[in-house]
Amino acid sequence: MIIDDPEVRAEVEAAFAAYETALVGNDVETLERLFHDDPRTIRYGAGENLYGMDAIRAFRRARSPQGLARDLRDTVITTYGRDCAVAMTLFTRAGAPGRIGRQSQTWLRFPDGWKVVAAHVSIIEDDHGASGAPHP
Amino acid sequence: MIIDDPEVRAEVEAAFAAYETALVGNDVETLERLFHDDPRTIRYGAGENLYGMDAIRAFRRARSPQGLARDLRDTVITTYGRDCAVAMTLFTRAGAPGRIGRQSQTWLRFPDGWKVVAAHVSIIEDDHGASGAPHP
Repeated sequence: MIIDDPEVRAEVEAAFAAYETALVGNDVETLERLFHDDPRTIRYGAGENLYGMDAIRAFRRARSPQGLARDLRDTVITTYGRDCAVAMTLFTRAGAPGRIGRQSQTWLRFPDGWKVVAAHVSIIEDDHGASGAPHP
Repeated sequence: MIIDDPEVRAEVEAAFAAYETALVGNDVETLERLFHDDPRTIRYGAGENLYGMDAIRAFRRARSPQGLARDLRDTVITTYGRDCAVAMTLFTRAGAPGRIGRQSQTWLRFPDGWKVVAAHVSIIEDDHGASGAPHP
């Protein structure tokens, strides 16, 4: 299994960037397209636990489009083989000083492109910071 | 790509169960063996962001062995192909009423067995609950 094959990694980086643009712009159609449409897809959000794409869709469509802008840091995307990848990032929002977000996603290659099959977002106080050096 | 091939799923369920037993027993050696020993392995914990196996090891070895017992619920393990899996679970601890933990892990098959390459643990208040029906 090749880890971080450059070609595969570029594909996932593009999908991750498309997701981020859609997230801060509340482009729900793109957000939904980038998740695997399946009852086994799960998203643990900052304050909700969403099992299955139906629950994820309902959450997205009801979400306020305000205050979604954010800055990413310590983002690490790692690909495993040609069909699996993990994207991990921290984020901060201007409206939430002193707090740090963490977002993890598992991406899989499907016939119609890369999709998130599992995601987890959480917020903690920023008195802990990051340990270890992010892989470049 | 076959999702939830029974043979593959049984392998990952066994690895997940071994991890859980090691976690509540603070069996650090097993916990470390079940994570991929690599600087790209990342664990966002309940209060810390650990980049790389060195940071993860340092955290494990310094951790108090007290209060680790927990009850899992809404656990969903899904395998994608033969070499990739996601394990998502909620958990509660008797010492933390009204709070719910969420743990997500991405597991990959390596020559020496299944390993976690990315994990995320977070705690939220239990006034939200789970949305959607966990896949059986």
